[in-house]
Amino acid sequence: MAKFMDVHRGMVGITPDQLHEAHEADLRIQDQEGVRFEHAWADPESGVVYCLSEAPDKASVQRIHERAGHPADEIHPVPLEV
Amino acid sequence: MAKFMDVHRGMVGITPDQLHEAHEADLRIQDQEGVRFEHAWADPESGVVYCLSEAPDKASVQRIHERAGHPADEIHPVPLEV
Repeated sequence: MAKFMDVHRGMVGITPDQLHEAHEADLRIQDQEGVRFEHAWADPESGVVYCLSEAPDKASVQRIHERAGHPADEIHPVPLEV
Repeated sequence: MAKFMDVHRGMVGITPDQLHEAHEADLRIQDQEGVRFEHAWADPESGVVYCLSEAPDKASVQRIHERAGHPADEIHPVPLEV
């Protein structure tokens, strides 16, 4: 397992309910790829959403996001943390 | 106070010690701007560092990062969180 930060762009105007629902959509199927989504932060003004997860690899994170209807624009492994 | 996610690019090859030292440099002076840096995640391969903070505004986050020697390339308020 490794830690990943992914970035979604173009979510301008995202509401708290929409963020919650998007996160729930990930959580509902994450076990199928062994992913654990931990946290997401959104800026409705610029439309950027950051999403932190633990996963076997980058592809498994993307597969869950795609199947949940919101593919990520960038996914970075973040092996270092403070 | 609001929550911010900032992004630093070009930190290719950053080591755990360097990330730790950069974070400590922020922590040492953050009180002067009322900022509280909470967490940072780094990808040494792509050179991206994400940094989560609570601060009065975006400018105060940038002033601390600049004075600590590592200005951010992007700073986003992230008022929504799950």
